[in-house]
Amino acid sequence: MIAPVEGGVTAPAGFRAAGVHCGIKKAKLDLALIVPDRAASAAGVFTTNTVQAAPVVVSKDHLARAGGLASAIVVNSGCANACTGPAGLAAARAMAAETARRLGCPAEQVLVASTGVIGVQLDVAKVAAGVGDAAGRLSRNGHDEAALAIMTTDPWPKACAVTVDSSGARFVVGGMAKGSGMIEPNMATMLAFLTTDARVPPPLLARALGEAVADTFNAITVDGECSTNDTVFALAGGASGVEIGEAGYADLVAGLRAVSRELAIGIVRGGEGATKLVTVRVIGAAAAADARQAARTIANSLLVKTAIHGGDPNWGRLVAAAGRAGVAFRPERAAVRVGGIELFRDGAPHDDRAPAAAAHLAGAEIDIEIDLGTGAQHQATVWTCDLSADYVHINADYRT
Amino acid sequence: MIAPVEGGVTAPAGFRAAGVHCGIKKAKLDLALIVPDRAASAAGVFTTNTVQAAPVVVSKDHLARAGGLASAIVVNSGCANACTGPAGLAAARAMAAETARRLGCPAEQVLVASTGVIGVQLDVAKVAAGVGDAAGRLSRNGHDEAALAIMTTDPWPKACAVTVDSSGARFVVGGMAKGSGMIEPNMATMLAFLTTDARVPPPLLARALGEAVADTFNAITVDGECSTNDTVFALAGGASGVEIGEAGYADLVAGLRAVSRELAIGIVRGGEGATKLVTVRVIGAAAAADARQAARTIANSLLVKTAIHGGDPNWGRLVAAAGRAGVAFRPERAAVRVGGIELFRDGAPHDDRAPAAAAHLAGAEIDIEIDLGTGAQHQATVWTCDLSADYVHINADYRT
Repeated sequence: MIAPVEGGVTAPAGFRAAGVHCGIKKAKLDLALIVPDRAASAAGVFTTNTVQAAPVVVSKDHLARAGGLASAIVVNSGCANACTGPAGLAAARAMAAETARRLGCPAEQVLVASTGVIGVQLDVAKVAAGVGDAAGRLSRNGHDEAALAIMTTDPWPKACAVTVDSSGARFVVGGMAKGSGMIEPNMATMLAFLTTDARVPPPLLARALGEAVADTFNAITVDGECSTNDTVFALAGGASGVEIGEAGYADLVAGLRAVSRELAIGIVRGGEGATKLVTVRVIGAAAAADARQAARTIANSLLVKTAIHGGDPNWGRLVAAAGRAGVAFRPERAAVRVGGIELFRDGAPHDDRAPAAAAHLAGAEIDIEIDLGTGAQHQATVWTCDLSADYVHINADYRT
Repeated sequence: MIAPVEGGVTAPAGFRAAGVHCGIKKAKLDLALIVPDRAASAAGVFTTNTVQAAPVVVSKDHLARAGGLASAIVVNSGCANACTGPAGLAAARAMAAETARRLGCPAEQVLVASTGVIGVQLDVAKVAAGVGDAAGRLSRNGHDEAALAIMTTDPWPKACAVTVDSSGARFVVGGMAKGSGMIEPNMATMLAFLTTDARVPPPLLARALGEAVADTFNAITVDGECSTNDTVFALAGGASGVEIGEAGYADLVAGLRAVSRELAIGIVRGGEGATKLVTVRVIGAAAAADARQAARTIANSLLVKTAIHGGDPNWGRLVAAAGRAGVAFRPERAAVRVGGIELFRDGAPHDDRAPAAAAHLAGAEIDIEIDLGTGAQHQATVWTCDLSADYVHINADYRT
């Protein structure tokens, strides 16, 4: 049983957080700390981009060297520390070392993440001052400021938490995330940090995080871009006393998934220029990978995203996008539903239903369903947003 | 030796054309005929979309049944005849049959193409009247009206021709095309029609057309979409008396490629909302397919296209797009050049050169070059356009 509760990364027992202004950004909060009371099991999922930012390289190394234990996550916004060469790697290591020094833990037990301008060196002196400031302000109430401190062009902070009842015991999962869009140039970076007071061996936590991320953070798209900095960390501190083995594993995945799903959908809602949350569900696929591929192709189609922005129940664009996804698709047995209204089935349009579908598209939550008509029953869901002229303005009007 | 000459599909000897208004569109020309003086060798390249419009299905069938001979190409705009089921197939066959009846040739020697609204039945009576009208107006001067009659939201007609000197003999290649964008809903369809007065056996023409299309029409992208109707036809009539065998083959490919390249670049220039022509050249790739994949990923990146629209020399977005292309890429040996100005090399930015690159981006013809740094020398070029708010308006503001 999963139930939402107030709070974010400090909702689970045994975690403190802080968000401070260290001067990377002009005036806004730009440095966050998340600290478990004692070394926690830790796991990470990272960008698949060949170009990996320095904090990604350092965090992977630290996770391996510390055997999946972490005593802190330190995050800055305003500077991605990506494409910064050896100096950038040294800066990411210094960021971890300074955090370790302040908290009295080994440097390899510190995980780092950055988001912001690419190709600019991180100001280590500012970060060090910020870490000192944040370490002095750590508290159970610090999660709000931490969630604010990791934002770039996000229109609002994203945090949530749930309780999970597992075989008579209860543990809590919390999280915070920042999404797509930077006021400075460059790519949309996604960062998310999950915490739980369950006690989980590191290998099991890594497996559970991978499962939870697959159909949440890896099932959203704003513009099809994959950043150099994308990172999801999970910490399991154990303060609840609830031990997760193979027995409670499914409950742990469910808790991580519930928080990840809410944060992921929050990222899409807050996508650059987004006015609508679009759920693309593909059914009737010959394989699970086909379903994901088709859903992602539809969700990234500019013609689909602009049609939805314009409120146009344009099933032709949906059929054409599915047709170019490179998966098994039988148009003569396919169906397209917009807000549950069937506009196309078995090769024939039902354009008389277009006004009802247009009424659905006028809302802020759009449901698209495509049956690929293969006869098999594999399915996938991807969340995306519409494409507005504001997206273009946000991403074009900045000049370096 | 290849030299440009005036004209389009009727520039080669032995071809006539016409463009007329048959009433599918309210007032504009909407039906074109291209007719060789006698049955010509014919070849086609078609959309790879799983959803294939009725004219695509019928034309493939006719090419096969007529053994690569064609006596006419008939094209309508304003209605794509796609997703129209058995009735649509019958309409496409009727369009061919009526053309054959007027011209006195077998129906399977007529190739058909359509572009326009999807999911709407083609009005066969209007098409038949238009075919009769066009057949009566066929002339060497009809190429201009033919090029106008195949347009949808294209800002201008696209036609060109070249002479090819081949071992002391001369033949001509001409062509016309329509590009991306429909005033009615739906996808961007690309149609192109090439003609030559060289004499070419059908199998050789098919091979040459495939080669010419690969690095021209298949190397452009406006928005990454692939329509249900995309078609390129080539007709070789033989009126020049120049016989192409294995000997003149390279010259034939060169001629087809020259015309295809000019038409393809014209399509990009006329892309919906486009204000800049962008040439993306990828070098230093480990394989030719890697080079094409990286160039296409960069050319379709919304963050790259909006940065170029905004005149921002944002090498970070270029590096990140290359990094997610799924090909071999060594950032520490890579280079990014904008208008020949090196902004990033061997892992280090040269941001002092950004103003010079910004000056280049202020122009209408943008050159982007990325060296993937693998040490191998494979390369590819893709042409695209910038992404403007007008693209969104064109594709969002229409309501069904």
